[in-house]
Amino acid sequence: MANSFFKDLQCDNCGEVYSKNHINTFCQKDNQPLLSRYTINGSFSKNALINRPKNMWRYYEMLPIEKENNRIHLGEGFTPLINLSQLESNYDQSHLFLKDESGNPTGSFKARGIGMAVSKAKELGVKEICIPTAGNAGSALAAYCAKAGIKAHIYMPEATPETFQLDCKIMGAKVTLVKGTIADAAAMMTHDNDGTWFDVSTLKEPFRIEGKKTMGYEIAEQLDWKLPDVIIYPTGGGTGLIGIWKAFNELKELGWIDNIPTRMVAVQGSGCDPVIQSFKKGIHTISPHFNPATTIANGLRVPKPFGDRLVMKTIYDSNGTAVSISDKEIIAGLNEFAKTEGLFLAPEGAAVWMAYKKLKVKNWIKNNETVVLLNTGSAYKYAENLRF
Amino acid sequence: MANSFFKDLQCDNCGEVYSKNHINTFCQKDNQPLLSRYTINGSFSKNALINRPKNMWRYYEMLPIEKENNRIHLGEGFTPLINLSQLESNYDQSHLFLKDESGNPTGSFKARGIGMAVSKAKELGVKEICIPTAGNAGSALAAYCAKAGIKAHIYMPEATPETFQLDCKIMGAKVTLVKGTIADAAAMMTHDNDGTWFDVSTLKEPFRIEGKKTMGYEIAEQLDWKLPDVIIYPTGGGTGLIGIWKAFNELKELGWIDNIPTRMVAVQGSGCDPVIQSFKKGIHTISPHFNPATTIANGLRVPKPFGDRLVMKTIYDSNGTAVSISDKEIIAGLNEFAKTEGLFLAPEGAAVWMAYKKLKVKNWIKNNETVVLLNTGSAYKYAENLRF
Repeated sequence: MANSFFKDLQCDNCGEVYSKNHINTFCQKDNQPLLSRYTINGSFSKNALINRPKNMWRYYEMLPIEKENNRIHLGEGFTPLINLSQLESNYDQSHLFLKDESGNPTGSFKARGIGMAVSKAKELGVKEICIPTAGNAGSALAAYCAKAGIKAHIYMPEATPETFQLDCKIMGAKVTLVKGTIADAAAMMTHDNDGTWFDVSTLKEPFRIEGKKTMGYEIAEQLDWKLPDVIIYPTGGGTGLIGIWKAFNELKELGWIDNIPTRMVAVQGSGCDPVIQSFKKGIHTISPHFNPATTIANGLRVPKPFGDRLVMKTIYDSNGTAVSISDKEIIAGLNEFAKTEGLFLAPEGAAVWMAYKKLKVKNWIKNNETVVLLNTGSAYKYAENLRF
Repeated sequence: MANSFFKDLQCDNCGEVYSKNHINTFCQKDNQPLLSRYTINGSFSKNALINRPKNMWRYYEMLPIEKENNRIHLGEGFTPLINLSQLESNYDQSHLFLKDESGNPTGSFKARGIGMAVSKAKELGVKEICIPTAGNAGSALAAYCAKAGIKAHIYMPEATPETFQLDCKIMGAKVTLVKGTIADAAAMMTHDNDGTWFDVSTLKEPFRIEGKKTMGYEIAEQLDWKLPDVIIYPTGGGTGLIGIWKAFNELKELGWIDNIPTRMVAVQGSGCDPVIQSFKKGIHTISPHFNPATTIANGLRVPKPFGDRLVMKTIYDSNGTAVSISDKEIIAGLNEFAKTEGLFLAPEGAAVWMAYKKLKVKNWIKNNETVVLLNTGSAYKYAENLRF
C-alpha cells in the first residue's frame, strides 16, 4: 500500500521548520502552532478512494501517521452530510446541509483530532498524555488512550456535565475537576505535570488539526468536490475551522478542486466571544475574554484560543465573518431544529443554526447559496444542561 | 434510477399473502408477523453499490420504499464494523468485530427500523403513529416523525432514563409515562388509541424488520461478503436477530453469497429472559416472563416478544444458542470493554460481550472463528443508570 506524504512541520508564522521524527509541540521561537506539510505527488487521485473504508483514514496520504498499525480506529469519520430539506424550504435556501459529527466515537468531532494525536503519539513512543478539556476532547482522549495503552490525565472544569466525567473514568483515565474555565484546568494541569506527560492541548500539539481537517476532505467528497459557499462552525479553540480551511487548500494543491469559494463563519457564545471581539476590530490577535459567563454550550467557553492568529486569518482569508449567540437563542434553535428536521443538536450545533438565521436575515447568505452547518457532537452528553 | 423489488407481504406461519398497497399490521388470520417479499432479478449486483452513499438506503432494491422522496434520511446506517484487536489478543480469537450502532441518529439501531417504518407510513399516507417503548425506539420515532410531519404518540415505562423522555419531547412527540414494563405501556397505549393512530409496535408493523435487516447486509458487505461464524445479539423484541437472518437469506437468493455459516446467539438479562427459558425447553413459542426484574439494560426488558416464533426459529435454524446475563456481569463487561478497546458500550452491548466470554469458555465458540458482537446504542443515553 502507498505511504503517507508527510514531510515535516512548519511554524506558519515565522517559517521555522521542525523534523517529523521528533516529538514536537509548538514553535519554540515564537510560541505559535506548527502545521504539517506534505510532499504531494500524482499517485494520490480521487479514484484511489473508491474502495477504501469510509472513515477518516481514507485520506492517509495526506495524514501524518506513517505506519498503518499505528492508526487507532474506533469508527471515527465519514459522518453523514444530511440534507435539511424542511429548513431549505422554510428559509428559501437552495442547498442547506448538516455535517453531523454526533455519530463519531465518544459522540463528537473531537474523536478525529484526538484520534490522530494519540495515533501519532503512539508512533513516536509516548507513554502518558494530558489534556485540559471542556468535556468532549477528554472523552476522546480517554477512549483512544485506552485502546493505545497510553495513560491519560484529564483536567476539566467542575461545571462539565457528569456524563463526560463518567466517560473518562470508565475508560481508565485519571480525571481531575477544576474550579473555573478550561484555562484554569490547563493551569492546574501544567502545575501537576512533572514533565513526563505529553500535553495535547489544542494546537500546542501539531496533529489534532490533521485529524480535524478530515471534515474538510469529507465535505468536499460528499459534495462531489464542489465546495459550499458558506461553512458555519462553532468555535472554541478553533482547530476545526482552521483544519477545514487547510484541507481545502490541500485539495487545491492535489488538483482535486480548482477554486475555494467557501466563506468560513466562526460562531461563539455571547458570554465568551473573543473571536467576535477581534473580528469587530479587524485585528489578527485575540485578547483573553475576561470573566467568561457559564453557558450550556460548554465547548464554546474558551477565553483565548492558542491558535488565535490562525483562526482570525482563516476568517479574513475566506471573506468570512463571526457571530455571537446567546444561551436563550441556543435553546430556541435546538427546539426549532428538532421539531423540523428530527435532529437533536448539541448546544454548539444549535448556536450554528441561529448564526445561519442571523446571516440570512442580513442577506450575508443569499438564497441560491450552498451552506454547510456543523454539528460537533451528541446532545445526549449534555442532557443535564437541557432539562428545560 | 432502478426501483424497489418489493412484491407483497406474507405471513410466515400460515402463508396468507397481503397486498403491498394497503396499510398492513400483522396476519389477521393467526396473529403472526408479516414479512416482506421481493421479486429478485439480476439487475441488482454487488457492483451497483460502489457509488452509492454509505447509508441503509444503498440496498433500496431490497427495501419496501417505492418512491425515493419518501425515504426519510437522518444519517442512519453504514455504522462501523470495528476490529477489536486488543480483545482478539487477550482472548485468543482470530477475528473479533463490533458492529457499533451507537452512531446512528438518536444514538441507536432503532433508527433503522423506525426510519423504515415511518418512511413507509409516509408513503401510505399515515398521519399519526403510536408506539410503546423501552426508550430508543421512542426517540427514533419522535425524530423520524418530526421530519416526516407525522404526529408521534409515545408510551414508555416511568423507569426509562430521563434523556429518552427529553429526546422525544424536544422532537415534538406526545410522551406518556406508564408504571411497569413496556407491556404495561403497550396496554395503556391501546386504551388511549381511538383507532386513528397507526401502531408500530415491534413486528405488529411489517417494515421495522426491513430496516433492521440492513445490519445484516452491512455486516456481509463490510466482511467482503464472507459471513461470520457467530453473531451475538441482545434480544428484546428480537427484530434485529430475525432481520439479520432474513438479510442473509436474501443475499443467498441474490446470489451474492453461497452459504450461511452463521450461528445466531440471543442475549437477554437474567431478570427477564423468556427466550432463554424457551431455548432450554427446546420449544418454538415463548411464555411471558412473570414479574420481570428492573435492569440497567432497559432494551432487554421485554416479557414476551410478539415475534416469538420467528425469534426461536432463527436460533434453531442457525444452530445458535441463547444466553442470560446479570446486571452485575453487564457492569463488569462495560468496564473491561471500555478500558481495553476504548468503547463505552450500552448495557445491552456489554451483555453481548459477557455472552461471548461465556460461550468462549464453554468452547461453543472456537479460537479460529470470526465473531461479530452487536452494540445497539449509545451509552450516553443511559448515563443515569451508570453512575457507579
